[in-house]
Amino acid sequence: MASVRIREAKEGDCGDILRLIRELAEYEKLSDQVKISEEALRADGFGENPFYQCLVAEILPVPGELQGPCVVGYGLYYFSYSTWKGRTIYLEDLYVMPEYRGQGIGSKIIKNVAEVALDKGCSHFRLAVLDWNKRAMDLYKALGAQDLTEAEGWHFFCFEEEAMRELAGR
Amino acid sequence: MASVRIREAKEGDCGDILRLIRELAEYEKLSDQVKISEEALRADGFGENPFYQCLVAEILPVPGELQGPCVVGYGLYYFSYSTWKGRTIYLEDLYVMPEYRGQGIGSKIIKNVAEVALDKGCSHFRLAVLDWNKRAMDLYKALGAQDLTEAEGWHFFCFEEEAMRELAGR
Repeated sequence: MASVRIREAKEGDCGDILRLIRELAEYEKLSDQVKISEEALRADGFGENPFYQCLVAEILPVPGELQGPCVVGYGLYYFSYSTWKGRTIYLEDLYVMPEYRGQGIGSKIIKNVAEVALDKGCSHFRLAVLDWNKRAMDLYKALGAQDLTEAEGWHFFCFEEEAMRELAGR
Repeated sequence: MASVRIREAKEGDCGDILRLIRELAEYEKLSDQVKISEEALRADGFGENPFYQCLVAEILPVPGELQGPCVVGYGLYYFSYSTWKGRTIYLEDLYVMPEYRGQGIGSKIIKNVAEVALDKGCSHFRLAVLDWNKRAMDLYKALGAQDLTEAEGWHFFCFEEEAMRELAGR
């Protein structure tokens, strides 16, 4: 199996990120809402005060193959704030191309986010998910997230500090 | 009636903000979750790269009265990012003390947030609300917000650009 690397996105990845943003929106049946451009992604993520951070999953080429690394997934997040618990991360998007699912790439990205969150003094990180996306919900729950909608009436997913430490192996 | 001023929070407001954060959490029946301290609010909101921005509503003293201005509400937000629409604001908390409700203070704060959002090139702003908080939901809807949970299966409130422009009178 080809090996996968999770790394911070560079400005040159914005074309790939946009391709995946569109695929995700299509999967979510909301692709008409995508108005973002590659230029906006470049300006907003790679300026002096970036609006977001992004991780990409890339498949490394098998030795002897001509093809270069290929971006097959991403996790886009930003720092946000909870008035109850302080600094937090919000994972806006998580996506892995269908043909690369089932290899743990999504879990790797989530773990990477948990690591960043801990490094930055965040006590948890949040995300939102569509109610029919059972595959994603099951993954988040399996990784230790709590469904705050069920518990309290919000529709958020939340990784508490314990789950993040678990994920980051600390 | 005493006059109300909405202004940007200063570091010295953090004691008042914490008092109101606790009142809001109590109203939301989730006060056991408040772990934040005044020190954290000071450090996270008023350093070089603040994690949040905050507006406060203060009642100005009636001439002749000894009492100084009093903070009776707040709106705490941060800049976030939509991979569909780019820059956005997330309104984490909005609260007005019960005895000062019904005077349009909440609406004033929301309008102020809409103005900031427009000034900063955001196409919309988002917030979350508890499903039983009908008073808040009705206010947001009345001000032009869309319930994205009903429409798509997310539990978010969203002010689209048009609603914000409407609010900001542009």
